[in-house]
Amino acid sequence: MKKILLAQLNSSVGDFENNKNKALSALEKAQKEDIDLVIFPELFLSGANFGDLFNRFPKIIKAQDEALNEIIKNVKNSALVGFVKEENGKYYNSVAFVQNQKLIKTFEKSILENKAEKLEARTFEAKKTNADERIIKLNNKKIGIIFENENIEFNGIDYLVVFDYSITRGNKEYFKHQKLSKIAREKNIKLIYINQTGANDEYIYEGASRAYNEQGEICALAKMFDEELLVLDDFMGQITPILEGLHEKPAENFDLNYENDLSRTYHALIYSIKNYFKKHGLKRAVLGLSGGLDSTICATILADALGANNVLGISMPSKLTSNESKNDAKELAQNLGINFIEIPIKETYDLTLNNLNHIFDEIELEKYSQTFTKDNIQARSRATILWCVSNEYSSMIPIATSDKSELYMGYATTNGDMTGGYAPIMDVCKTKLFALARWMNKNREIKNAIPENIILKPPGAELALDPKTGKTLIAEDALMPYEFLDEVIWRIENLHQSTNDMMKETFLYEKKNNITNTQKLEWLNKFFKRMNSAAFKLYITPLAPMIDNSSINKRDYHMPITSKIIY
Amino acid sequence: MKKILLAQLNSSVGDFENNKNKALSALEKAQKEDIDLVIFPELFLSGANFGDLFNRFPKIIKAQDEALNEIIKNVKNSALVGFVKEENGKYYNSVAFVQNQKLIKTFEKSILENKAEKLEARTFEAKKTNADERIIKLNNKKIGIIFENENIEFNGIDYLVVFDYSITRGNKEYFKHQKLSKIAREKNIKLIYINQTGANDEYIYEGASRAYNEQGEICALAKMFDEELLVLDDFMGQITPILEGLHEKPAENFDLNYENDLSRTYHALIYSIKNYFKKHGLKRAVLGLSGGLDSTICATILADALGANNVLGISMPSKLTSNESKNDAKELAQNLGINFIEIPIKETYDLTLNNLNHIFDEIELEKYSQTFTKDNIQARSRATILWCVSNEYSSMIPIATSDKSELYMGYATTNGDMTGGYAPIMDVCKTKLFALARWMNKNREIKNAIPENIILKPPGAELALDPKTGKTLIAEDALMPYEFLDEVIWRIENLHQSTNDMMKETFLYEKKNNITNTQKLEWLNKFFKRMNSAAFKLYITPLAPMIDNSSINKRDYHMPITSKIIY
Repeated sequence: MKKILLAQLNSSVGDFENNKNKALSALEKAQKEDIDLVIFPELFLSGANFGDLFNRFPKIIKAQDEALNEIIKNVKNSALVGFVKEENGKYYNSVAFVQNQKLIKTFEKSILENKAEKLEARTFEAKKTNADERIIKLNNKKIGIIFENENIEFNGIDYLVVFDYSITRGNKEYFKHQKLSKIAREKNIKLIYINQTGANDEYIYEGASRAYNEQGEICALAKMFDEELLVLDDFMGQITPILEGLHEKPAENFDLNYENDLSRTYHALIYSIKNYFKKHGLKRAVLGLSGGLDSTICATILADALGANNVLGISMPSKLTSNESKNDAKELAQNLGINFIEIPIKETYDLTLNNLNHIFDEIELEKYSQTFTKDNIQARSRATILWCVSNEYSSMIPIATSDKSELYMGYATTNGDMTGGYAPIMDVCKTKLFALARWMNKNREIKNAIPENIILKPPGAELALDPKTGKTLIAEDALMPYEFLDEVIWRIENLHQSTNDMMKETFLYEKKNNITNTQKLEWLNKFFKRMNSAAFKLYITPLAPMIDNSSINKRDYHMPITSKIIY
Repeated sequence: MKKILLAQLNSSVGDFENNKNKALSALEKAQKEDIDLVIFPELFLSGANFGDLFNRFPKIIKAQDEALNEIIKNVKNSALVGFVKEENGKYYNSVAFVQNQKLIKTFEKSILENKAEKLEARTFEAKKTNADERIIKLNNKKIGIIFENENIEFNGIDYLVVFDYSITRGNKEYFKHQKLSKIAREKNIKLIYINQTGANDEYIYEGASRAYNEQGEICALAKMFDEELLVLDDFMGQITPILEGLHEKPAENFDLNYENDLSRTYHALIYSIKNYFKKHGLKRAVLGLSGGLDSTICATILADALGANNVLGISMPSKLTSNESKNDAKELAQNLGINFIEIPIKETYDLTLNNLNHIFDEIELEKYSQTFTKDNIQARSRATILWCVSNEYSSMIPIATSDKSELYMGYATTNGDMTGGYAPIMDVCKTKLFALARWMNKNREIKNAIPENIILKPPGAELALDPKTGKTLIAEDALMPYEFLDEVIWRIENLHQSTNDMMKETFLYEKKNNITNTQKLEWLNKFFKRMNSAAFKLYITPLAPMIDNSSINKRDYHMPITSKIIY
């Protein structure tokens, strides 16, 4: 077997026509270039992350089968195609082996995955298998077939093909590379890893399909975050360099040096935005520009993903908005070249407050002694503007700019800044956003688009005054230092720690600052109390890409809302 | 064995202290009344529907184990307790058999469930078992233990105990009763069915634990939607009558006669509201009263669940609101005895539109030829008021009043009427709501609280004028007849039909009205097109109780957002 084609193509959920056409174009190339075997990713034809689609609408599988039949007719040599197989009302995660326009056999996944982003048991049945059933012979070569999580012991195969639909997360690439390289080396075989690319909903399939030789060295590597038809000729192919930092050993402790993950984070965000907008027929985004870090990052990546002319930034100052913030917002918009307008909300605020006061005077029910009513009028008036603007301009959606650190704390206004048609940075925490701002200033085509002032000033929502200082409240005073907060999140998501565990460990923040155990415990208790109260907010957050190893995205972490948990 | 106690108690997710205390009080009663065996429901101690709690925070299991140990110390005779068992980092859905203050053995569920409301594979491992391992001996009687979905063949047992955490859904009770009665009859054994009660998040555990004799007759039945300590004395106990209609054979076709399900629907909604508010420390609700059916139903059930004095209805007329609607809203509030105030939103509307027009004049990007901008300003201005009111009054949340028919169609305003802290009728379709209104007028303590006019007038959002008539647009004109719409939903949820299937069948609406196939196909296409576009809205709906056999609740139906599906 001389030539193999890895068809790393971007398929869409349930869009069998699109997926089939992509397959046919790969097969056309294969015929022209005399390819022996074309390999499509796991669940290529159905699209990955289809939720309960087939459970709820079982007839849809027929359209997928018709698409498969048309693909089969166009396979002149051989192909392996990931699809959903239906048999007697049961569904299997399958790969079809096709040869000379005939379906030769299918392989069904033997161990289902049910954590985080893969919810296979909701749709699929597992099917037991053994090594013999998983071998195909092609041009006198024996090829073993596995799904990524399976561990099947083969004897005397020439190639091992590993099927996957793997999303980009934190340092997953490092561990994936280690694992695959080790298998090739230890089993002394040629290994092919084929992955989905594209993004569907929250899931960013990273691509980076590849081949390893018997020494565990990469001898071909497809792009990350893009489609590619990668040809292996005598098992050698083009190698796209892996993004910066991804093959370096991840730090074992929380670290503010995000350098190794910024390139991946940036490209994953851009890819998610592009896919989400394109697959929806969307073109434009509108967002509030506060002059703060979150809206700044969102505006910058949206400009890069959609084109500056397709982004509209609106500055909506209230009486608490400083001139500094207004200027920062304006300067950013100019630097990015996006559409920009300033609409003060002072009058709307006064009128709404007046209406509310009528109610508060008239209706006698127990009131909170301290309320966020006035703060929230501002955030909600702004959200109304953004949503209504998106109703007027064609194919435009409003953007929720909340970040991960603040969402964990519920530090976001319901029906206000946390709403939108898409939430780009919901899985990026604050300290990483600061690093990303600097990285973008250095690495984007136009350097230093983000005003230094935005990166230097302490974050704050500018919705209320601090009674102590008379100045607008700074977020770290309302919450806790971001360095501390982000380490708590890191420890939860990566080490699954609770309060007791964390009290035993020394935080990075503690190494630099002198804090008492009482203070530390107070912050931890505040964190978990706020996290529990935020559960209902996390339940209504808009669609957001997953970026980190673990997240609070509602499809990634099913968080109980009604609960009294002591963490 | 003479006396058995079915401890049908309302446990909360992760609230081990509460759950343990409830168990201890049942054990106290058991000791006083000389009970041989106390049976607690499946997953009683952990609380049911804990999502990824233990995956994310594995240390929490220790608190559950401590609670279990304290329960064990207080078991003087015997008890069976549902809990989550952790062993070597793996979790099992287990039942502990406790005798004389000792843990004798545990039983682990052998087949996991992964559809709809049960997502067991995310947390649990299955453990193979056989009949011998599932038998306990007590006072010379042999008791077989199974989880509801298991099918284990026992030989020569005296009792079969079936563990469950089953939520109320459509006609589930009918089929459950048929199944359990048949097992008792055919195996000629005494059967005990123990179920959770209470509501956690979207899930309403209905209770109705019971005992069947060898003839398959119910000889004891605990309450639905309430706690009960039900004593079986010589296998006889109190029988609470089952709610009206639930043991009648369900209709096989779509039917506007909802009579058999109205009592269940009403009580399930009330129970959900009570549980959600109580378990959150909430007391009060605020909602917009439009004079339409949806807000009317919500206000009525909230008044019944929370007490009229804890409900605040706000009429927020715009210039499109008719006097009729204003009067209906006011009359309803008076009849229910809830707090009421009218706050016109005309000025807010004008000011917001003025602000928007500044933007629309200034920013030149492609616009929609027809927009909903003006309609939505109204819905969003109202939502701002409701959310801000809930910020001021203690323990109050705003209510989203959208119904199931309209949410399927995306006929609800983002950041407007579809937002809130809780959405009571999100799983009740429009034609059923009309029936429920009449049922409540007849069956509530205060008769005819809902003005007849509200039930008689055609639903419409009063957000826009119909260009043809010059009157406010009626929902059925914007969508399709509700009778037709609700049958499409019924066919999807119960029969899993797609367009082709439905074209082959005769709808109830067709039997009464003469419509062409072209018209029918047009409505079906409109339905599926709107449903697909509504996916992003369904993703951000607030927490809502599940009521029907199947729903669009995001935890019940994982609906892909990015997709181009031909249904």
